[in-house]
Amino acid sequence: MIKQFTKTTKMTRVKKEPSLRFIALGGLEEIGRNMMLFEYRDEIIVVDMGLQFPEEETPGIDFIIPNTSYLEAKRQNIKAVLITHAHYDHIGAIPYLLGRLGNPPIYTTRLTKEIILKRQEEFSKSIKPIIEPIEFNKVMPLSKYFGVEFFSVTHNIPDTVGLILHTPMGKIVHPGEFKLEHDKEGKPKNSELEKFAKIGNQNILLLMLDSTNAEEPGYSLSERVVEGTLEEIFRKSPGRIIVGTFASLLDRIAEIIKIAQKLDRKVTISGYSMRSNIQIARRLGYIKINPEDIIPLEEMSHYPDNKLLILCTGAQGEPNASLMRIINGENRYLQIKQGDTVVFSSSIVPGNERAVQNLKDNLARQGAKIYHSKIVDIHSSGHAPQEELKLVLKLVKPKFFLPIHGYYFMRWRNAELGQEVGIPKENTVLTDNGQIIEITKNTIRITKETVPAFYVMIDGLGVGDVGEVVLRDRKTLAQEGMVVIIATLKRESGKLLKNPDIISRGFIYLRENQELVEQIRNRVKGITLRIPKFQPIDADYLKSLIRDQIGQFLYNKTKRRPMILPVVIEV
Amino acid sequence: MIKQFTKTTKMTRVKKEPSLRFIALGGLEEIGRNMMLFEYRDEIIVVDMGLQFPEEETPGIDFIIPNTSYLEAKRQNIKAVLITHAHYDHIGAIPYLLGRLGNPPIYTTRLTKEIILKRQEEFSKSIKPIIEPIEFNKVMPLSKYFGVEFFSVTHNIPDTVGLILHTPMGKIVHPGEFKLEHDKEGKPKNSELEKFAKIGNQNILLLMLDSTNAEEPGYSLSERVVEGTLEEIFRKSPGRIIVGTFASLLDRIAEIIKIAQKLDRKVTISGYSMRSNIQIARRLGYIKINPEDIIPLEEMSHYPDNKLLILCTGAQGEPNASLMRIINGENRYLQIKQGDTVVFSSSIVPGNERAVQNLKDNLARQGAKIYHSKIVDIHSSGHAPQEELKLVLKLVKPKFFLPIHGYYFMRWRNAELGQEVGIPKENTVLTDNGQIIEITKNTIRITKETVPAFYVMIDGLGVGDVGEVVLRDRKTLAQEGMVVIIATLKRESGKLLKNPDIISRGFIYLRENQELVEQIRNRVKGITLRIPKFQPIDADYLKSLIRDQIGQFLYNKTKRRPMILPVVIEV
Repeated sequence: MIKQFTKTTKMTRVKKEPSLRFIALGGLEEIGRNMMLFEYRDEIIVVDMGLQFPEEETPGIDFIIPNTSYLEAKRQNIKAVLITHAHYDHIGAIPYLLGRLGNPPIYTTRLTKEIILKRQEEFSKSIKPIIEPIEFNKVMPLSKYFGVEFFSVTHNIPDTVGLILHTPMGKIVHPGEFKLEHDKEGKPKNSELEKFAKIGNQNILLLMLDSTNAEEPGYSLSERVVEGTLEEIFRKSPGRIIVGTFASLLDRIAEIIKIAQKLDRKVTISGYSMRSNIQIARRLGYIKINPEDIIPLEEMSHYPDNKLLILCTGAQGEPNASLMRIINGENRYLQIKQGDTVVFSSSIVPGNERAVQNLKDNLARQGAKIYHSKIVDIHSSGHAPQEELKLVLKLVKPKFFLPIHGYYFMRWRNAELGQEVGIPKENTVLTDNGQIIEITKNTIRITKETVPAFYVMIDGLGVGDVGEVVLRDRKTLAQEGMVVIIATLKRESGKLLKNPDIISRGFIYLRENQELVEQIRNRVKGITLRIPKFQPIDADYLKSLIRDQIGQFLYNKTKRRPMILPVVIEV
Repeated sequence: MIKQFTKTTKMTRVKKEPSLRFIALGGLEEIGRNMMLFEYRDEIIVVDMGLQFPEEETPGIDFIIPNTSYLEAKRQNIKAVLITHAHYDHIGAIPYLLGRLGNPPIYTTRLTKEIILKRQEEFSKSIKPIIEPIEFNKVMPLSKYFGVEFFSVTHNIPDTVGLILHTPMGKIVHPGEFKLEHDKEGKPKNSELEKFAKIGNQNILLLMLDSTNAEEPGYSLSERVVEGTLEEIFRKSPGRIIVGTFASLLDRIAEIIKIAQKLDRKVTISGYSMRSNIQIARRLGYIKINPEDIIPLEEMSHYPDNKLLILCTGAQGEPNASLMRIINGENRYLQIKQGDTVVFSSSIVPGNERAVQNLKDNLARQGAKIYHSKIVDIHSSGHAPQEELKLVLKLVKPKFFLPIHGYYFMRWRNAELGQEVGIPKENTVLTDNGQIIEITKNTIRITKETVPAFYVMIDGLGVGDVGEVVLRDRKTLAQEGMVVIIATLKRESGKLLKNPDIISRGFIYLRENQELVEQIRNRVKGITLRIPKFQPIDADYLKSLIRDQIGQFLYNKTKRRPMILPVVIEV
């Protein structure tokens, strides 16, 4: 009773005006895994639920998803999940996380909804999402304390939205991932400027801005230029045209299909995700093509080469994607031949440079003419570069500025852009994943509190079962390989019952190094001879002797440090 | 006797005019590992002996060197090794190969000589090279059939040369790695044009051209612009300036030191290779600095921050290089602080993007202001882009054209440039490593013959002992990890003597998955129960059963395919 009482008093004493809390669970410190939350009293609003593609540092991992342990404990407080657009770095973790979070309602646009639902089908055990339709340019109440106003932004997939979150502290603007649309002179369209100017009249407390291209000077390359260049290339291509791009770049895909129709080429699609996305976009009217002009791969042979355009995935050199299967001769209906034109209408994701180089080499060897975005203007990023970021900052005139999305240096650069247009440094916050930010009507500050935000890795069917230890082992194995040493001992005497067994993988080819194997065996024999007799064998001690001494021996011999795995078997 | 006689007749019959043979042992199909040879009758001339840095596909490998088995068998025929410049992709394999090739004389420039000798010292068992001095712009005889004329070219390390090889078939021009130097208006200098025009008057049979930048349009960025931008940045930097670049970029280093002197900043050097290269370049007069203006790291504290410039290696994010050690706090004299300016005066080698991103993030977090070549013009490549390649092609007017250096697509693009300036496609040869090219006065053709040209990998002390099998294992281990399963059986009965031992690394964390371990054990027990009694145990069969069945079981459970290593111990 007394304890109970003390606790209550204490609570009363620390009582203060509750503040709004903002936490990014991912999307800072990296590209991808975008997920953030706003919390006020017992209400939480989540924005996006994305995944991150694996890195060199995470070998063998399929995806990385945000860590939601903080949210899971408070799942009953989650009032809404707002999804800005249908790219996997914003929706990809939904099948893994929605159930764990108590299936809160998702608010998003039509296309995003359809792509989420389609993907959910691929996960047999996943929950059925509740997706609420949204209305543009009006405040939709989400809960007691929160409301949201969606506005349309230009990205590279249709139905991308930004949001104005109405909170008890003020309005927070998050335009999602965006760039500005341009008129024919290459200037940002008036409609774009008006949209942000109108938002700027609303006394915005906080603006969050995508930092992905904060290092890129100038304005984005207009999609109209990209469209023009593509048409020019298509017109002069004598044979088949094969366009490799991301299945998620639906705006570009729509443009390409439009040009194909104009030039009287039939369109055929290779790649599951491409086909499924195009199907959804056609159903919703974002891609328009006469049904007779889109033909299955197997009917290509009915048409002359100069009447065909093939859309496919795999422009990043992904081993299992459509383009790679085509050049490897694994596509029954389509092989590269002299006269083909291959157009890469995409950027290269950092880390894929070598794979794309191999792809280009192979295509060129098979006789294709290749165009890629380093040579001609056939790709434009979906993220605003410096001048566009500055324009939005100037138009929205927020009190506080919080750069999001991207590595620290990119966000730091974005913060600098803010300062260039007059947002004081002290009103700008550079935060990391998991840090708790407290926002009031007049202040923004990074608290010392954090929530868990480390990687959760997906490998095969496992969610989170590959941790740091397993990854570290994978890296060592990849670099140095391993040697298993099995010593079979007689329990009573500690004597070796047989020659130690040595297995190695990824170290050196032991069959061709029998002398080294013999030397290892002799050393193990030597070690076991020193076991005191008539005492129980201390297997752990023996193992550590083998690990250290054989490890050192192999290092001296080879200057390599394979993982040594000693096994002591007592019979 | 008869046999002998037949052979002789046959030889007489097939006798024909001997042709000149050209073989690249490396440097086509990749960047690096440059080494080529010319062969006529019993004479061989080798050009360059470089290494290649490891790739994603070769985990744990230190370097890749050219395969010289063809040359080793004919070592007595090697009359000369011509080295174009002192970069590791042209000299790096010398310590490994020179001895195996019978220590043929090396012809090269002073700086290249000194760097070769310095590096040789690091290899205790390596041979002492015989290095012949060269004279520019006159024909030096090399052997009965071959002579060479060296000419100076602009690259990014001093003393880089091109060569005109005099052969019985005609003159072959190989300008090495080069770009054109520019005047203040950014146009190629007259002296550059005159040099190649003069060569063009010599009736050149074959031109070989570096394809590294054959995809880059226009002219190179002038080093004078780079110098100007660097000076501008240095002038406005309030505190210390830290410049990260390649130790091999000696022209740039010389420029940076020159500017530092002009701005009255002391120069200090961090990084072994940087220090050693600068020492050699100073000794030969390529870098000029008053001895009192170059100070050791430990004396930095005697000077105000705005009087210091630190040159260091590690701009690629290499884990052990100087810059990385500085940001990790491992340099006793130098930590990053607010007010520091860090300048990356180098490009990013493909594959290092993430490491450089981490480096930039860390520097920015520690308060440094960062400039890199994507933001400002502070780096220029050493390789001629399209317009310069075309200029040289037009000036040299070769009969035949053979693009070298770089992936297939780059060489293919280079070949296209040749066609743009009028070199017929049929006079252009795109060859691969190891193919034998036959050259006569009027023909050039790729024969069907090849010599071994596959990778020779250096890992620790081993040269060539890591082969395809070991690499494939490393890749599997990195992606999926492995599981060792040890079944200890009684020899007579085939009965399991104890519970099977299971060890795993890089798969899942077994301590937290005891249920799975038990399931594996039970399955192994099941398998051993099916061994026919009173028959000798077929250990190989048992192992294959374990490998297949446990492999399949784990795949069903986890959708992963770890390497399964069964061990059967009979006692």
